[in-house]
Amino acid sequence: MDNLSKKADSAIIHLNNAGASLPPASVLKAMTDYLTLETEIGGYEAADLKTAEIRRFYTSTARLLNAKPENIAFCGSATDAFSRALSSIVWKPGDVVLTTENDYASNQIAFLALQKRYGISLVRAKDIPAGGVDVEDMARLIQQHHPRLVAVTHVPTNSGLIQPVEAIGRLCRAEGCLYLVDACQSAGQMPLDVQEIGCDFLSATLRKYLRGPRGAGFLYASDRVLKDGYELAIPDMRAATWTSADEYVTQPGAQRFEYWEMPIALVLGSTAAIDHALERGLPQIHQRINHLSDLCRNLLQEIPGVAVLDKGEHLCGIVTAHAAHWEPASLMAALKAQRINCRISPLVAAQIDFRKKGVEWALRISPHEYNTEVEILKAVEVFGSYEL
Amino acid sequence: MDNLSKKADSAIIHLNNAGASLPPASVLKAMTDYLTLETEIGGYEAADLKTAEIRRFYTSTARLLNAKPENIAFCGSATDAFSRALSSIVWKPGDVVLTTENDYASNQIAFLALQKRYGISLVRAKDIPAGGVDVEDMARLIQQHHPRLVAVTHVPTNSGLIQPVEAIGRLCRAEGCLYLVDACQSAGQMPLDVQEIGCDFLSATLRKYLRGPRGAGFLYASDRVLKDGYELAIPDMRAATWTSADEYVTQPGAQRFEYWEMPIALVLGSTAAIDHALERGLPQIHQRINHLSDLCRNLLQEIPGVAVLDKGEHLCGIVTAHAAHWEPASLMAALKAQRINCRISPLVAAQIDFRKKGVEWALRISPHEYNTEVEILKAVEVFGSYEL
Repeated sequence: MDNLSKKADSAIIHLNNAGASLPPASVLKAMTDYLTLETEIGGYEAADLKTAEIRRFYTSTARLLNAKPENIAFCGSATDAFSRALSSIVWKPGDVVLTTENDYASNQIAFLALQKRYGISLVRAKDIPAGGVDVEDMARLIQQHHPRLVAVTHVPTNSGLIQPVEAIGRLCRAEGCLYLVDACQSAGQMPLDVQEIGCDFLSATLRKYLRGPRGAGFLYASDRVLKDGYELAIPDMRAATWTSADEYVTQPGAQRFEYWEMPIALVLGSTAAIDHALERGLPQIHQRINHLSDLCRNLLQEIPGVAVLDKGEHLCGIVTAHAAHWEPASLMAALKAQRINCRISPLVAAQIDFRKKGVEWALRISPHEYNTEVEILKAVEVFGSYEL
Repeated sequence: MDNLSKKADSAIIHLNNAGASLPPASVLKAMTDYLTLETEIGGYEAADLKTAEIRRFYTSTARLLNAKPENIAFCGSATDAFSRALSSIVWKPGDVVLTTENDYASNQIAFLALQKRYGISLVRAKDIPAGGVDVEDMARLIQQHHPRLVAVTHVPTNSGLIQPVEAIGRLCRAEGCLYLVDACQSAGQMPLDVQEIGCDFLSATLRKYLRGPRGAGFLYASDRVLKDGYELAIPDMRAATWTSADEYVTQPGAQRFEYWEMPIALVLGSTAAIDHALERGLPQIHQRINHLSDLCRNLLQEIPGVAVLDKGEHLCGIVTAHAAHWEPASLMAALKAQRINCRISPLVAAQIDFRKKGVEWALRISPHEYNTEVEILKAVEVFGSYEL
């Protein structure tokens, strides 16, 4: 277990990895060492000293995604990265954004805000009965609308579904649509290859399955995006250079999506987290998480009155379930009494999915590779304990 | 000296406080304690445990500015805060942004990008001969253009100038113009009162005179801004609530300018930094910094061949100077050999100001209250040493 950097307080059962996971010791050390250095020699001087280490954020993230370092921008979160991608598009009335019924709540709010401000149209492809977006419907809608942007959340926050992002990527490439994938819940949980996905943008966060710091994320921007001149709506002096009173020049690489000021300690913590994931091996992590989440679903299904809510041809580490006998607050209290960390997904996080499933909330159990079968068992036991 | 939390390594002379200052011990401790807690019990669970402490960020920042907590949003930097304010305005072709010749490089790039994308007009009020914006010219331009936004950098990064933000605020209120003040270099260096300034937005950073962490800042948004429905161009589920598939509701307070995911450790570090500044007293800090920067300018003026570049009726802690005999790289090396932290401001940071002053760079010496007269003397000595 040592090489998994299991948490110090072994009494806590942390099954909220889709919220924020427990960082390995190397991540904490990278951050606290650097914060200490800053207080000793100064923030800019520390950054000057650690230039090579800071650059490694870009090479490590590029390795994680099968990209080049110049396609990577550091951001404050997946939402921040997603928003920067959206901000680089010059929206015109009638532009269509094509998305799914399972896209993340914040992304849906962003699309609705673009609709209100710029008069774009928001179109959602329907799901297949088994769960997950209907790729044929998506193909039809792409033909019909020629969307300005196709945006897909790889793994929703509120279900174990994995969306077929590669198949959608092939449709987008065939039609020449801009394609944005939100990999917030998949990065660190499973292998990601932006060449195979065929996306123009990919946004991700560090705090979830990548086991990095809070307040950190990244944006991948494809060569095509860089070549075609996409840039932030409001760039700064890192994204661009002020060349004369009335002129600026945008950076050639994905640095154009960054701001000058960064939490360097979190950049270094992010690098340590990504390096840790790469060392462990993404296929291995994926397999282990699937093993634990499959076990969890199987155990939950045996409990009378409990409904496992995850639907989709391919499921992953996020397990969601509902039981009418529980009130969310008392369920959380019962879990907390056993020192089990899980989360309730509320309706405001899944307005479309939960209404279709006929629930107002779901218990979300999200194991990481450092969890054990016994921990899964204990969480399931609490959920089933209303029968006692 | 203890109560100033002087840096551990007393051999370093840190005169780069306009870059990033040395945080007091309480700031480092707040961050490392919290990062450690996150690795032990989980990121969301740590935030749940520290709700009251996180809320204190808003009350402390409100105290600093003479505002209410609901007018404050946490941001990643002053530039990030500035950009969120700009993003809340629905720009139309012909809208005028009125600014000054001394506004920050990143802000100038932002205005030029708005010009390119939305067809706004950028107008700059001229300086008075003594330095600093001509308030009468500003009054004239406000009458002439009825600007959509008046934006003023309180203290430029590239000179010791303090702009007359209160006088400009009176003009804006009389005309009903939206008024954005960038307090990046003034926050923590001098008292700030948003009621006296009369601004609608104020952006600031933590890492400079406030002695907080890198990657942290805040935005003040006035009641008027909140009442008039300004919101982020791309809000998320903290800025707004997703209420049904096609509807969202914006938050009533300045939380509407935030994103859900935050680096909570940096929020707590920021609170510790602001509390430290409030305890020390902003008038006292201001006086001490002025004493050291006045001394620095006086000493520099005595060196033949050295030109002090700061111009303005009111000067502050940023001292800028130039000497034709120095190359920037060798000057930095000479300072570094004496373990003195200063910074060179390059032309790309001050395209208008430096061209008017006829220089391509300036040495920036920026003391904080924890610096000593002897340290100022040593830095000046190096700058004068080319004569030896």
